[in-house]
Amino acid sequence: MTPQLTEFFDFLRYPSISTDSKHRDDVRACGDYLIRKFNDMGLKTELHETPGHPIVIARSKPKPDRPTVLIYGHYDVQPVDPVDEWDTDPFEPTLKGDKIFCRGATDNKGQHYAHILGVEETLKAHGDLPVNVIFLIEGEEEIGSPNLAPFLAQHQADLACDICAVSDTGMIGPGIPTLTYGLRGIACLEFKIHGPSLDLHSGVYGGAVPNPATIVSRIIASLHNDEGIIQVPGFYDSVVPLEAWEREMWASLPDGDAATLAETGAPGLWGEAGYTALEQRWGRPTAEVNGVGGGYQGEGSKTVIPREAMAKLSFRLVPDQDPKKILKLAQAHLEQHCPDSCRLEVELGHDGPAYVMDPHSSHGKAAQRALQRAFEDEPRLIREGGSIPIIQSIKDTLGVDTLLLGLALPDCQIHAPNESFTVTNFEAGIRLNRALLEELGNG
Amino acid sequence: MTPQLTEFFDFLRYPSISTDSKHRDDVRACGDYLIRKFNDMGLKTELHETPGHPIVIARSKPKPDRPTVLIYGHYDVQPVDPVDEWDTDPFEPTLKGDKIFCRGATDNKGQHYAHILGVEETLKAHGDLPVNVIFLIEGEEEIGSPNLAPFLAQHQADLACDICAVSDTGMIGPGIPTLTYGLRGIACLEFKIHGPSLDLHSGVYGGAVPNPATIVSRIIASLHNDEGIIQVPGFYDSVVPLEAWEREMWASLPDGDAATLAETGAPGLWGEAGYTALEQRWGRPTAEVNGVGGGYQGEGSKTVIPREAMAKLSFRLVPDQDPKKILKLAQAHLEQHCPDSCRLEVELGHDGPAYVMDPHSSHGKAAQRALQRAFEDEPRLIREGGSIPIIQSIKDTLGVDTLLLGLALPDCQIHAPNESFTVTNFEAGIRLNRALLEELGNG
Repeated sequence: MTPQLTEFFDFLRYPSISTDSKHRDDVRACGDYLIRKFNDMGLKTELHETPGHPIVIARSKPKPDRPTVLIYGHYDVQPVDPVDEWDTDPFEPTLKGDKIFCRGATDNKGQHYAHILGVEETLKAHGDLPVNVIFLIEGEEEIGSPNLAPFLAQHQADLACDICAVSDTGMIGPGIPTLTYGLRGIACLEFKIHGPSLDLHSGVYGGAVPNPATIVSRIIASLHNDEGIIQVPGFYDSVVPLEAWEREMWASLPDGDAATLAETGAPGLWGEAGYTALEQRWGRPTAEVNGVGGGYQGEGSKTVIPREAMAKLSFRLVPDQDPKKILKLAQAHLEQHCPDSCRLEVELGHDGPAYVMDPHSSHGKAAQRALQRAFEDEPRLIREGGSIPIIQSIKDTLGVDTLLLGLALPDCQIHAPNESFTVTNFEAGIRLNRALLEELGNG
Repeated sequence: MTPQLTEFFDFLRYPSISTDSKHRDDVRACGDYLIRKFNDMGLKTELHETPGHPIVIARSKPKPDRPTVLIYGHYDVQPVDPVDEWDTDPFEPTLKGDKIFCRGATDNKGQHYAHILGVEETLKAHGDLPVNVIFLIEGEEEIGSPNLAPFLAQHQADLACDICAVSDTGMIGPGIPTLTYGLRGIACLEFKIHGPSLDLHSGVYGGAVPNPATIVSRIIASLHNDEGIIQVPGFYDSVVPLEAWEREMWASLPDGDAATLAETGAPGLWGEAGYTALEQRWGRPTAEVNGVGGGYQGEGSKTVIPREAMAKLSFRLVPDQDPKKILKLAQAHLEQHCPDSCRLEVELGHDGPAYVMDPHSSHGKAAQRALQRAFEDEPRLIREGGSIPIIQSIKDTLGVDTLLLGLALPDCQIHAPNESFTVTNFEAGIRLNRALLEELGNG
């Protein structure tokens, strides 16, 4: 056990479960630990109270001739249920071979603590940093960061920076340095089809009146053609096509189709014709049904024509689709496909645009060089299919891009029992931080 | 109040709710009342115990040179909830104008008691009947007649007859004599679509894997084309087309399209192109979704790709569709429309064939003459869209057709609060019975 691992284990021992009010004091104690650590490193610290858990800020002494790097992380963790499925105590870090088993080991304590130790090493070695650094480590990421966007808005000036760095995403595989340069956006809506004014006997009236469960299904079916291509008029109008280098890059990755099948357990793939599974997941927009319901769903049969049926849809978006415009197009499509014999009710839900940065920008190139140095391999450039609202908040409020430098491995079990982080990635993360700050300072 | 109405009111006062064990003794007391009544009329009575409520049998003295008529009815009634919505005590028959308000007034006490009084009047007038009569009045119709089919099978010889008569269906409108000569059959199934082996994040995997909610919807949508015509190959192969006289007869009835809209409250009609609403409801087969479900149906959004989704289908059938064959065709259609990327699971449900008798047979013509005499108007010949399993049991076990001579009016509120029966129809029912037995005796 190196001294760095020993203190990391101390940090991991705090059961900082943000969603559980019983752990409120533990979350705070974990934040206090970071404040002590940053103070020991000679950084200037601030513990910001919020209506929920505190936000920790730590700054190197700012020098005006250097770029400023904001490093984001979160010290809160997911609950540990089902606790019976853990092979070890979820809050007693346990080293087995290369793996450290503990809740929060990867998500996100291990990933941001490596950045902290990287800064500490640089300070010890050189007494100074090549850039100004601001750490922003929150305690509410696992409950949706309800107080982060207001905090950013309130402290816009104090948090002014040139680039943000976050290690909270995934690596393609062990030892493969990975820069995530894009995330999909989202647009949600729910619709209901109203037919008869009451549930009807399907014998007495069946055949002559609209069945809302049938109509909802027909509308859902109208969203795609047989080739998986979305049929909402105008849906693809603003889509930026994948560039040749992206398709080549993703095609060179370990087989995405096979991995998608293995990870999901689906009997087969189903998606937009002409694209690989990774392209479909990372670079193409979708129309998914998150829920559908109508009529009798219990045991046995009840021969009813339901008075209404509903579906919840979400569209994953890519650059440059405008979420509000997509919701308008989708609503128009639903209206067009609802027969006159029914009444359509649409409720729009939350939305957010896709995020993308140019990995070939100077910041992107600096990140690639840092990844190359830390892992001694060519960095892979990927996107991810989900949305990370924090990244958009940072872009919107502070006006900067984020370098997503994930250290999570596919088998690290975040949010699940037996979460782990490898010592290899912990040490690579420390090297990555040192290289990143140097490269950004040179940039 | 005539003496006939007075004794009918006594009969109505029994709260013979078969589904409610608190009313077990009331149901029996109501059956005992019938036994006393039939004994007073000089009929030979039998009270048959069943695992549930007793079956009442009463026979006129059989004479070998006459046809035998089985008159079926049920003395049990529906519950009275919501009791607050009744304007009068549900079990205190209340006369307002022409209407008798009471639970069971139409369904079915009023309708079969008219037959009883008709037989009594004939016996008083002539000391004899033109036919042999067997009354079969059960106490479990409202709970699905669980003991009737076994009873019929066990007493096949004792119940041998030439024709059955039942007044438990509807009239087109006040004063319009109505013979129902057909009922639709039914075939039910439930199917599930299995996709991924667990619920997936729709951001991470959306676009590349099959979404079972989408696939279930696409399969449902494949059941009909845009003209409402069922697309299951072979579905219509055995369908007996409507005859010209039927379409003419039904077209002459009070506007079925408008009535269907008014009764259902649907904003419009939706059904098989080329047929009126009454034709669609009475004479054409259907494919209805009785329930559909998958994914998240609660409040707000949850961006999940569900691991499975399901639908419950029922097909209403017409002569000569074979329910088992229809289920096979439907299953084959589902299999054909399930993509390789999903797994289909089908569970077949209950089924039963359509029922139809020839209204121009000698029995049918006798019934029409009786209706004409009782109501002094031309009888209308209709079918109904639902299924009445009892009628099929009688056909299967006793080998005879049933004359469905409904006395229920569209506004009589059966199964609902403020059920009523008109004195006019009560008296018409007595006349109808007398005329029917004469016509069948002459047949």
